[in-house]
Amino acid sequence: MKKIAILGSTGSIGTQTLEVVRENKDLRVTALAAGNNLKLLEQQVREFHPSLVAVWKEENAAKLRLSLKDLEVKVASGMDGLIEVAASGESEILVTAIVGMIGIRPTIEAIKAGKDIALANKETLVTAGHIIMPMAEKYNVSILPVDSEHSAIFQSLQGGQRVALHKILLTASGGPFRGKTWEDLQNIQVEDALKHPNWEMGRKITIDSSTMVNKGLEVIEAKWLFGVTVDQVEVVVQPQSIIHSMVEYEDGAIIAELGTPDMKLPIQYALYYPERRYLPGDRLDFKALSQITFEQPDMETFYGLRLAYEAGRRGGSLPTVLNAANELAVSKFLNRKIRYLEIPEIIETCMNHHQVTDNPTVEEILQTEAETYEFIESRW
Amino acid sequence: MKKIAILGSTGSIGTQTLEVVRENKDLRVTALAAGNNLKLLEQQVREFHPSLVAVWKEENAAKLRLSLKDLEVKVASGMDGLIEVAASGESEILVTAIVGMIGIRPTIEAIKAGKDIALANKETLVTAGHIIMPMAEKYNVSILPVDSEHSAIFQSLQGGQRVALHKILLTASGGPFRGKTWEDLQNIQVEDALKHPNWEMGRKITIDSSTMVNKGLEVIEAKWLFGVTVDQVEVVVQPQSIIHSMVEYEDGAIIAELGTPDMKLPIQYALYYPERRYLPGDRLDFKALSQITFEQPDMETFYGLRLAYEAGRRGGSLPTVLNAANELAVSKFLNRKIRYLEIPEIIETCMNHHQVTDNPTVEEILQTEAETYEFIESRW
Repeated sequence: MKKIAILGSTGSIGTQTLEVVRENKDLRVTALAAGNNLKLLEQQVREFHPSLVAVWKEENAAKLRLSLKDLEVKVASGMDGLIEVAASGESEILVTAIVGMIGIRPTIEAIKAGKDIALANKETLVTAGHIIMPMAEKYNVSILPVDSEHSAIFQSLQGGQRVALHKILLTASGGPFRGKTWEDLQNIQVEDALKHPNWEMGRKITIDSSTMVNKGLEVIEAKWLFGVTVDQVEVVVQPQSIIHSMVEYEDGAIIAELGTPDMKLPIQYALYYPERRYLPGDRLDFKALSQITFEQPDMETFYGLRLAYEAGRRGGSLPTVLNAANELAVSKFLNRKIRYLEIPEIIETCMNHHQVTDNPTVEEILQTEAETYEFIESRW
Repeated sequence: MKKIAILGSTGSIGTQTLEVVRENKDLRVTALAAGNNLKLLEQQVREFHPSLVAVWKEENAAKLRLSLKDLEVKVASGMDGLIEVAASGESEILVTAIVGMIGIRPTIEAIKAGKDIALANKETLVTAGHIIMPMAEKYNVSILPVDSEHSAIFQSLQGGQRVALHKILLTASGGPFRGKTWEDLQNIQVEDALKHPNWEMGRKITIDSSTMVNKGLEVIEAKWLFGVTVDQVEVVVQPQSIIHSMVEYEDGAIIAELGTPDMKLPIQYALYYPERRYLPGDRLDFKALSQITFEQPDMETFYGLRLAYEAGRRGGSLPTVLNAANELAVSKFLNRKIRYLEIPEIIETCMNHHQVTDNPTVEEILQTEAETYEFIESRW
C-alpha cells in the first residue's frame, strides 16, 4: 500500500492522479489540498477518504468542515494547511500538482519530512532548483517528474549512466500557432490561444504552450532535474507529440520515450517508480501511424523561449522574474487586459529591469516575485 | 583492460570491432579467427598482437605460420582452432562475428568457459536458442546483442522491468525492394539485391535484408534474447533506419533507440556494457531531419518473413531448416544458379518437407542443416 498526498487535487494533474489511484487498489490517498473548487474537493474526500484536507482560504475551510461534518477528516487552511498536507506523517509521496510559486514552501517541507516528490509544479525547480535539488539529495528523497517531457527524459535515462549523457532533446508540439509569424499573432484572442492541438491541459499552461514559454520553463526544469546546462537542452518541434522527449549519450545513441498523449502514464510511472504497471488506455499504433515530423523552434516569433534560455543561462533570481512576469502577463491576457504579443514583451521588460541576485533564498525568490508583480502593475 | 577474442575478424562486424579496439586503449585483442582473407588477417595480427589466431583450413594455417614466423603467435585451424579462440583462457568476452551455423559450437564452448558473448552471429540463437540461453544463465554469462536492432531493444530495456515488457517493435528498412510487387521482383539480378539503402553489410546479409528473411531471423533471435513469443515481436518498416528498434511496456510507454546507421555503436556498447563511452562519428541531427516514416511490412510479397514467424512459432528444428534453406538458396542466387524469387520458394518447400524435432541437440541441429542442404541439392 503506497500512501500519497496531493497538492492541487482538483486541477488537471490532480484529477488524473486520482484516476490512477482509482485504478490501483494498492494506492491510498492520505491528504488532499485544493484551491477554490469546493464541490469537487468534497466529492474527492467522500470517494478517497483522506484523513486531512486543506484549502487556501479559511472561509472555504469553514464551509468544507460543515459539509464534511459526517466524516472524520481534518480540514486545514492557508500555507500551514498546504504544508501539513505536504509534510504530514502518513504519506510516502507528495504529488505537487498545484500551479504557481505557492508550491515551493510545501515542497521544501515535504522534502525535509523525507517524502518523495512527484513534481508537476513547474515553478518549484524553475525558481528554486538550486535549493530543492541539493536538499533532495541531502534528505535522500527522489524528485520524480510528472510532466510528459521530463518523465520521458527520466524514463530514457533509466539504466543509462548520467555521466555519459551528452544532451537532452526536449520535444515541443509547437502549440496552436506553430508556423505563424509575428504579424499573424497581432490579433490573437483568448479563445484562439486556448486551443491546444494535442494535449488537454489547464488554461494557464495552454497559453504558455502557445507562446512556447512553457517549453522555456521546461528547459530550465530539465537543467535542474538532470544536472545539465540549458545549452545541453535542445528543443525539437515534433508536432504530433508522439516522441515525448529524448536523451543523447556520448556514443551518439539516442533513447526516446514515445506514446499517446496521456498524462496518466507519467503520473503512474512516478507513483510506482521504478516499477511499471498496466495502464488502461489507447496505445500508439504503428499500423495507423504514418510519420513523425520534426521542425526547428522559431525563437524569433516565439521569443519567450529565447528569454527562458537567457534566464536559465544567467540563473540566480532571473528565472523567477521570467516565471512571475509570465504568470501575471498570462493572467492579464486571459482577463483580456493585454494583447497576446504583450506577454513576451512584459517578460523581456521585467528581465531587463531586474537586478539579478545569485543563489536567492526562498524569501528572496518570493520577494522577487512580488517586485515583478508590482513592476508590471505599475506599467500595464 | 578488457580482453577480447573475435570469431570472424576479417568480416564487416569483425573489422568494425577492431576499429573500436583501435580507438580505445583499454581494449586488448587476445585471439582472432577468420576464414579465407589471410592477407587482412596477417595485417590484423601485426597491428593487434593476439597470442592466438585460427583459420578454418589447415593449409591456410600453414601459410599463416610461415608469414607470421617473426611473431610469437600460435596459429590453429579447423573447429578446434575456432573453439580455442572462443574459449581460450585469456579473453573475457567473445565477439561472434562469424557467419553461419559454424558459430554454434565455439559459442557454446565460450559460454562454458565463462566468457561473455557479444553476439553478431544470427544462426546461434535462431537454431540453438533453446540450448544457448539456459546455458548462459547456468554459467552466468551475458549474451550481448551486437546487431543494430537487438542492441536498440537491449538499450531500450535497460532500467526497465522485463516483467512489464508488453511487446517488441522491431524496425526494418524494408530493403531495396520495399513497395515492389511479386511481379516487379521476377527479374531481380544479384546486383540489384546487393544495393541496400542504409547499411553497408556483407553480401549474404544484404540479400537477406532484401528478402526480409533477415528480419524474420531477427524476430526469432528477439524471442530468445528477450524471452518473448514471436507474436510479441511486431515488425515496423521505418525506411530511414533512424529508429533502430523499440520496446512497449505494459503501461503503453514505448522506449526507442535512435541514431545514425553505425555498427560501431552496438559493438562498443556490447564491449563496455553497461558503461557508455564517447564514440567518434556522425550524430543524428534533428536540425536536418524532417521526418521519420512508418509502413507495414508486406508479408505477401516478402513471404520469407511470414515463414520465419511460422518457424519461430513452431520452434524445434524448424528454424534451422528456415536458416539452412535460406543460406544455401542465397548462395545459389549469388552464384546465379537460381532466380531471386526462388529463395522464399526453396525455404517454404524445405519447411513443408521437414519433420520437426522438438528440443534438438546441437548434433540434431547440424544434421537438420545437412539434410536440408541435401534436399535442396537434390531438387534445385
